[in-house]
Amino acid sequence: MKNAPIGIFDSGVGGLTVVRAIHDLLPQEDLIYVGDTARFPYGNKSPATIIRYAQQITEFLQKQGVKLVVVACNTATVHGLAALREQWALPVLGVVQPGVDAALEATRSGRVGIIGTVGTIQSKAYQQALLQARPELHITASATPLLVSLVEEDWLQHAATQLILEEYLAPHRAAQVDTLVLGCTHYPLLKGLIGQMLGPEVALVDSAENMARAVAERLRQDDLGHSNSKRVGTIQIYASDLSTQFANLAHRFLGREAGTIEKVVLTD
Amino acid sequence: MKNAPIGIFDSGVGGLTVVRAIHDLLPQEDLIYVGDTARFPYGNKSPATIIRYAQQITEFLQKQGVKLVVVACNTATVHGLAALREQWALPVLGVVQPGVDAALEATRSGRVGIIGTVGTIQSKAYQQALLQARPELHITASATPLLVSLVEEDWLQHAATQLILEEYLAPHRAAQVDTLVLGCTHYPLLKGLIGQMLGPEVALVDSAENMARAVAERLRQDDLGHSNSKRVGTIQIYASDLSTQFANLAHRFLGREAGTIEKVVLTD
Repeated sequence: MKNAPIGIFDSGVGGLTVVRAIHDLLPQEDLIYVGDTARFPYGNKSPATIIRYAQQITEFLQKQGVKLVVVACNTATVHGLAALREQWALPVLGVVQPGVDAALEATRSGRVGIIGTVGTIQSKAYQQALLQARPELHITASATPLLVSLVEEDWLQHAATQLILEEYLAPHRAAQVDTLVLGCTHYPLLKGLIGQMLGPEVALVDSAENMARAVAERLRQDDLGHSNSKRVGTIQIYASDLSTQFANLAHRFLGREAGTIEKVVLTD
Repeated sequence: MKNAPIGIFDSGVGGLTVVRAIHDLLPQEDLIYVGDTARFPYGNKSPATIIRYAQQITEFLQKQGVKLVVVACNTATVHGLAALREQWALPVLGVVQPGVDAALEATRSGRVGIIGTVGTIQSKAYQQALLQARPELHITASATPLLVSLVEEDWLQHAATQLILEEYLAPHRAAQVDTLVLGCTHYPLLKGLIGQMLGPEVALVDSAENMARAVAERLRQDDLGHSNSKRVGTIQIYASDLSTQFANLAHRFLGREAGTIEKVVLTD
């Protein structure tokens, strides 16, 4: 089992920022990624639908013999993590808790901001997890739904992106947060611009990096790390719908060649 | 058959601009709408997948006894219209041809612009249909993928929307088009702002309005109009995934109360 791959999934291309971070931190591990591009995005779908999709993908990953599953999608984590853990014996890690832990570690003033999709913010998953750990926190949460499209358009430094971010970040500036959780796997690509805009006094919590750290920690705890720490693992990408746009984005999100992307049929 | 409803579908909420236009022009007709919200958006999916989805929805509409099907989705029209017409005996109308006809009628200079999703523009459906009718036309086509999100966010007059449109409209200004085809069912909501920006000398071709005129014409030709022209027809909306966001958008796109939205299960 130590030498089995790690399975990672998201509704689309976003989770490849998590794949990149895991590969950077744990290069010896083989990674299998599923992007459910045929049914992207999950953000505006109902919890029951999202749970069904997450179960189908986990079943596929389990058949590929993975040793651990990473839900690299905030919406699927919020709605599906408990159901997946109930159904499967494999360790299943979600993207919310690592972000929460990192925010708790980063904040000095106790004033924490969260940005994410409508679904993630409405679910209150980050807010509740933060307040459960530290009830005295002052939390500012806001949905920032245009950011996913802007990232996919590659408008990472565009004047319009800056204008939109000015508006989206205004409540966080007003609340004087010292920590901002980027609660969506697309947002690491905007970390540069957000960092320039908020300045070094605001810590940015990047879901992808913290997810990778949580995976490393879990492999260590369960003694599931690859037995050969010198090797360089493979990255196999599956998508439920293939398009040239996905291939282009995959390259950009992964920060390297994506290799051959295979189609996976997820039956409803 | 004359008193049967008209079926209309789209990948999401956008086609409700077409429902609104048909209801305004033909208030006596009963309308059944299907928004395939569980699988929205179609724009970045492969042709084979889109054809499969369009067939499933048309089958559902056919079971509801509709007399005519309107494909109120540019992507589904581009990839699915031929397949639907082959499979079903019902008249099936797509959203591309009415827009093309209206553009041909509107242009004086023969310089025509088209904006739409990546899928619609890459398919070249509008470009080819225009050039087939008039090979001497000078056509400028550009993908404007951020507009759907901006419309769904209700940022119809926002400074960021204006900045993004300035960039998107620049090639059309440079080409001195006198007619711009709004090749996406979301864009009628931006007609006001685009009209302000381009001025009255550029004619805007609105997919929804022209689609409604094409439906009226076809009903007349086939003698399929409702026998009681004094009645006010019903609008029944189905969605493959229900969410509060869809209900809110439906209200806005339809321009009136959306009534009870029913769930439809579309099996893959």
